[in-house]
Amino acid sequence: MKIDGQLYRSIWVDEDERTVVVIDQTRLPHKFGTRQLVTVEDAAHAISTMVVRGAPLIGATAAYGVALALSEDPSDANLENAIMLLAGTRPTAANLRWALEDIGRRLRPLAAEGRAVAAYRRAGEICEEDVAINRAIGENGLALVEKAAEGKDGPVNVLTHCNAGWLATVDWGTALAPLYMAHDKDIPVHVWVDETRPRNQGAALTAWELARHGVPHTLIVDNAGGHLMQCGMVDLCITGTDRTTARGDVCNKIGTYLKALAASDNDIPFYVALPHPTIDWSLEDGADTPIEQRDEDEVLTITGRDEAGQETTVSLTPPGSRAANYAFDVTPARLVTALITDRGVCEASEKGLRTLFPDCAAEASSS
Amino acid sequence: MKIDGQLYRSIWVDEDERTVVVIDQTRLPHKFGTRQLVTVEDAAHAISTMVVRGAPLIGATAAYGVALALSEDPSDANLENAIMLLAGTRPTAANLRWALEDIGRRLRPLAAEGRAVAAYRRAGEICEEDVAINRAIGENGLALVEKAAEGKDGPVNVLTHCNAGWLATVDWGTALAPLYMAHDKDIPVHVWVDETRPRNQGAALTAWELARHGVPHTLIVDNAGGHLMQCGMVDLCITGTDRTTARGDVCNKIGTYLKALAASDNDIPFYVALPHPTIDWSLEDGADTPIEQRDEDEVLTITGRDEAGQETTVSLTPPGSRAANYAFDVTPARLVTALITDRGVCEASEKGLRTLFPDCAAEASSS
Repeated sequence: MKIDGQLYRSIWVDEDERTVVVIDQTRLPHKFGTRQLVTVEDAAHAISTMVVRGAPLIGATAAYGVALALSEDPSDANLENAIMLLAGTRPTAANLRWALEDIGRRLRPLAAEGRAVAAYRRAGEICEEDVAINRAIGENGLALVEKAAEGKDGPVNVLTHCNAGWLATVDWGTALAPLYMAHDKDIPVHVWVDETRPRNQGAALTAWELARHGVPHTLIVDNAGGHLMQCGMVDLCITGTDRTTARGDVCNKIGTYLKALAASDNDIPFYVALPHPTIDWSLEDGADTPIEQRDEDEVLTITGRDEAGQETTVSLTPPGSRAANYAFDVTPARLVTALITDRGVCEASEKGLRTLFPDCAAEASSS
Repeated sequence: MKIDGQLYRSIWVDEDERTVVVIDQTRLPHKFGTRQLVTVEDAAHAISTMVVRGAPLIGATAAYGVALALSEDPSDANLENAIMLLAGTRPTAANLRWALEDIGRRLRPLAAEGRAVAAYRRAGEICEEDVAINRAIGENGLALVEKAAEGKDGPVNVLTHCNAGWLATVDWGTALAPLYMAHDKDIPVHVWVDETRPRNQGAALTAWELARHGVPHTLIVDNAGGHLMQCGMVDLCITGTDRTTARGDVCNKIGTYLKALAASDNDIPFYVALPHPTIDWSLEDGADTPIEQRDEDEVLTITGRDEAGQETTVSLTPPGSRAANYAFDVTPARLVTALITDRGVCEASEKGLRTLFPDCAAEASSS
């Protein structure tokens, strides 16, 4: 997507054909900068500290992390160590495990000397596949936005939570892909952006990337969406997901469940945009999804830009306050109007997913 | 209630028997300090800038604001001007209108020279009545906490939103009164404190007053409550309200509706603590409640304590971002398990409220 007219992706290989470069998402929206990943430890650290985040981009970064490891030492032991290290960075995103299983399965049979090249090639393919998947999600979701725009005066008002835009993927995004496509086709859209405490990916990343691409949007606190829906100010909701179970329960950023409840209570469509590597065919019940707990400092403090333009972290609570910090919640399939996938739109159910992805379901049950 | 062992109220008259003193709630939790209100304009400004907030305390401050005005000029014109000025400060809190109608009705028949003394006396009575009301709410709600504690291993886990503690009232609080009483009776309670963006009254005020009184609590982001409820980590919810309609629809801090939806979806009791001056007998449908919109800067920025201990305001969004800032939402009566009032606990319905408050309902319909 574009940053002030210039095309960007969120991850790429540098001119030395070895170093991996990512946009440093911990500095946005205050500073746009990149980070060079030279070792597998750099890649693991970038994932765990959320320099990169978003389920698809975590998967792509992990694949490149394996490539970085093998370019130093292509032995069996180092391959397994790299996979172990990267797998432990974030527990919830299904794409992380998917990417590591994919690349591990392809590299293990190869002779050591060919592994590094093959790893870079496969990581690059995973990135290209992600772009194609998200483009397809965009096209499939666009029809839903077009339908909402029919006969409507003014823009289609879409509420989104967290960041499932191009910064969460290699390009296009998942939840935001249909909105970028609608905007580019001159279908008027306006996005209500949940700020998404504690890490404010909405205020920091979604608002930033929508602004850079010129899509009209308004920031709201996470508390506001229910009121907007009650007042007829939301036409549809679209979010991403970090892991979706075989029966369509959706694990996504903490707070998604609350918005799905409000959408259901007000008869507003609640869509989840879903690249197929995010499906965990081994899980039925969303309640069994591992929910990451992160450091309490993410709740007790916040980083912003002070009057001098400097990034500053401030404490929000009385000294000594303690916080709990659950990073994700699970929205039951019954609250999801439909899943927007790379192969089409389907019911959030085992039947819906198996109809679109019979091959993936079969492969998962045979493994 | 106690601040580190010393008894405090949130508002009082200074030793000069004229100046009104309030705790400056815009500085908490970083600095404990008071503010002197010398003129009616000081009182109006304290309300509109949220130096004082919370429906009952807004009512009490407005009553003292009339007293301050009349001690300068007790004329009819000045009385009406003061009431007009104060009534325009915050549109949603029912107690503001209630207190101004009450004091206006009592002062208008009096000769000008007796008005100031009478106004101070009535403002003081309103404060004492508020304390008595909240004590009664505490006692009535305590029974519900005691019931939840029966046969339970570990503390009763209570989720609250915003600040409906003693800082929101003259003393005791509404939603927190039953919890203070339970704690003081050695019934173990643990409070999940919603931070309550954008103004963070939970992180700044509720966490602060619970800590000062020694009540165990944990701060969470507003997004987290649904997940906690899904996981069985919440036994009951209690919030306050700024205005409740005759049929039991509850207007309260933005985001309350989302928590009520989650409580309903997980069969967790959702109680609203309600001093009777908060009831608006003239309104049936909560959707007709005027919802205050505040400045977008409350969303775009946040104030905290920097590393040097200084209060610092930081920007959270890209330059140029715009925000919407609705301060309240309406929870329909169907989502409220019961109302905890100063006259007992009742169903959130016209019948429930009329049974407990036949006199108030009759008075309202005759006026």
